[in-house]
Amino acid sequence: MKKQDSVFSDRITDVPRSFIREILKVALDPSVISFAGGLPNRALFPVEALKEATSKVFDAHGRDVLQYSNSEGYPELRDYISARYREKSNLDVPVENILITSGSQQGLDLLGKIFLNDGDGVVIEEPGYLGAIQAFSLYKPEFLPVSVSSQGMDVERLSSVMSKCPKLVYTVPNFQNPSGISYTEQNRRDVSRALEGTSTILIEDNPYGDLRFTGEPHSSFKELLPDNTVLLGSFSKCIVPGFRLGWIVAPTHIMKKLITAKQATDLHTTHFTQSIVYQYLRDNNIDEHIKTIIDVYGRQCQAMLSSMQKYFPPGVTYTEPEGGMFLWVELPQNVVALDLFELAIKDKVVFVPGDPFYVNRTRTNDLRLNFSCVDEETIVTGIQRLGNAIGKIAGTGA
Amino acid sequence: MKKQDSVFSDRITDVPRSFIREILKVALDPSVISFAGGLPNRALFPVEALKEATSKVFDAHGRDVLQYSNSEGYPELRDYISARYREKSNLDVPVENILITSGSQQGLDLLGKIFLNDGDGVVIEEPGYLGAIQAFSLYKPEFLPVSVSSQGMDVERLSSVMSKCPKLVYTVPNFQNPSGISYTEQNRRDVSRALEGTSTILIEDNPYGDLRFTGEPHSSFKELLPDNTVLLGSFSKCIVPGFRLGWIVAPTHIMKKLITAKQATDLHTTHFTQSIVYQYLRDNNIDEHIKTIIDVYGRQCQAMLSSMQKYFPPGVTYTEPEGGMFLWVELPQNVVALDLFELAIKDKVVFVPGDPFYVNRTRTNDLRLNFSCVDEETIVTGIQRLGNAIGKIAGTGA
Repeated sequence: MKKQDSVFSDRITDVPRSFIREILKVALDPSVISFAGGLPNRALFPVEALKEATSKVFDAHGRDVLQYSNSEGYPELRDYISARYREKSNLDVPVENILITSGSQQGLDLLGKIFLNDGDGVVIEEPGYLGAIQAFSLYKPEFLPVSVSSQGMDVERLSSVMSKCPKLVYTVPNFQNPSGISYTEQNRRDVSRALEGTSTILIEDNPYGDLRFTGEPHSSFKELLPDNTVLLGSFSKCIVPGFRLGWIVAPTHIMKKLITAKQATDLHTTHFTQSIVYQYLRDNNIDEHIKTIIDVYGRQCQAMLSSMQKYFPPGVTYTEPEGGMFLWVELPQNVVALDLFELAIKDKVVFVPGDPFYVNRTRTNDLRLNFSCVDEETIVTGIQRLGNAIGKIAGTGA
Repeated sequence: MKKQDSVFSDRITDVPRSFIREILKVALDPSVISFAGGLPNRALFPVEALKEATSKVFDAHGRDVLQYSNSEGYPELRDYISARYREKSNLDVPVENILITSGSQQGLDLLGKIFLNDGDGVVIEEPGYLGAIQAFSLYKPEFLPVSVSSQGMDVERLSSVMSKCPKLVYTVPNFQNPSGISYTEQNRRDVSRALEGTSTILIEDNPYGDLRFTGEPHSSFKELLPDNTVLLGSFSKCIVPGFRLGWIVAPTHIMKKLITAKQATDLHTTHFTQSIVYQYLRDNNIDEHIKTIIDVYGRQCQAMLSSMQKYFPPGVTYTEPEGGMFLWVELPQNVVALDLFELAIKDKVVFVPGDPFYVNRTRTNDLRLNFSCVDEETIVTGIQRLGNAIGKIAGTGA
């Protein structure tokens, strides 16, 4: 199947087109209620505080942060991240094991770059994060999907695919995108045990970890499986996504390769926005700000759960997230989410059908709902519309 | 030579380590005069004007530019770039053929991603830009070096390597990094003729094009070879490098692939800094600002040329750039630039030895000097020190 005559590389033909991108275009109509986006709520952006921080940065070291800088990242920001891991998660992460990236999406690209040869195995959650599927696709791996449920990863299946010696196991253990599920403490230990003693790298992508509404936090893989774990973090969900700032935590021998790859890829991430974020974190109480976000998202999540219970016909099930921005709906077996999408958009409500979150399935009967961007009242209206549409398509006449 | 037992990808082991990075560490000693850097002069950064532009951006559309945004880039900035090509270079570049990147280094990474399969041919200038060698190395091409001289690219050699059907020909036709040379009008036409009718893509990397001290500008490859040319531009040299903002101009079928790759790589470049640059360009006269830069760099270049004439021993030759930030020195045959480096650093002057600018040569007898970051007086002192060191090592007793 090699397209010998194409001027383009084989790898670029393997990347799935972003279905979500297409959907978001549709959702621009303001009368459409959108549960499709993956955006944090812009009403909560600390715009004034960031403006103040920026002004300070210009005055204190404008010329420094506007010049070319080092590839690792703004030193003070890396110090901050290290200290916060120690303080909040009891994790010992030395500064030299932290690399600032242009969003955690870039972290995925860099990890694909330094680890993946053609055909290398990559364990991916099923359903899994679309951005990770896209990023890794460029390095032509063999995807090994392992399903996730409300307990976490299917460890039996994971143990079975470990016989293929995958290079990477990609996980979002807290409030997963797209499903909203979290791995239980036991599941984390079982997953760690399956990887122990192997050279497989576990990627713990944790953009939503701070956004917990209920329940207790669990151990990080970084703690359970320190030698094999690479941790990804982000400022996108707790401050703003527009700065495109994330980070990678990796063991020293991996960090060396990451820095080489980072340099070849874009020299460095702008220190300008890094220093603004650092100044903002110094001058403001981020924990209070996070609490505000949690209150809003938690209430919106609750409104969505109650509305689904009220308006969804029987036979529809859904996850009950303890945090994050998404939940996952499973429709009756005979309902194709893509068909529901066509119907629902006429009723002015949209979501993301399950298909793009699978590497090898289409016309699935599940879908992702986002609750971070829509206020409670609108959620009730939107879920009612969606419930009607499901009722129509499922033939229950609801 | 495949390292089967390495946990890392083959590609990452192919990337040359950045020699310049190592040198820059040495150059931190303030008593060392450094001609090694590749930095624009920070004294010329328009810090106050950028601060004002930033404040306006926060007030006018803070929330918009702090949210996730489209992958193509900030629309108004792309409009500006398109209009400027029309006005200044008489080039017709529609907005939809412009993609904003995280510096033009990222442009190189994206082009490598979408074009290169293992072993594909990439014509690279000899000596050539180290960042391009690093970026393309990750996609495991066969480099086909073609030498450049004061006339431009060696067209006979280029025509000969064209028989290998290279995917890419990488050029910096204006004030090349590292050599400072520019392609003549005739050379550009000859190079274009060598590619005409082929499916080889010519990359015209033009970060320095606006910084012309003397002479007349020449035709862009975009004009001479429109279907095959991909143009790279940058705000790093005329505004500030720290924002990491560049762009790619590409034909529509290539642009589609680039956007897919951009999305998988880092979703998008921050619209925050893009909107600041756009606001700055609206409120200020960029041509006046460029004129200031040209005046300073032109005087510094002249000071370097005069000092070399005065202090360098016979047998040393050098290029005479019409613009940009670098010039290139060829030492007598028996002098190894790396050895000179060891000697010169004791005399408190540093430069970049030629080696990293070649894909397959070491212990070369040439070196790169930067003149953008050092004032005229310091240049005279530094060149005198360097002349002494050359004299010592060449055994002329100067």
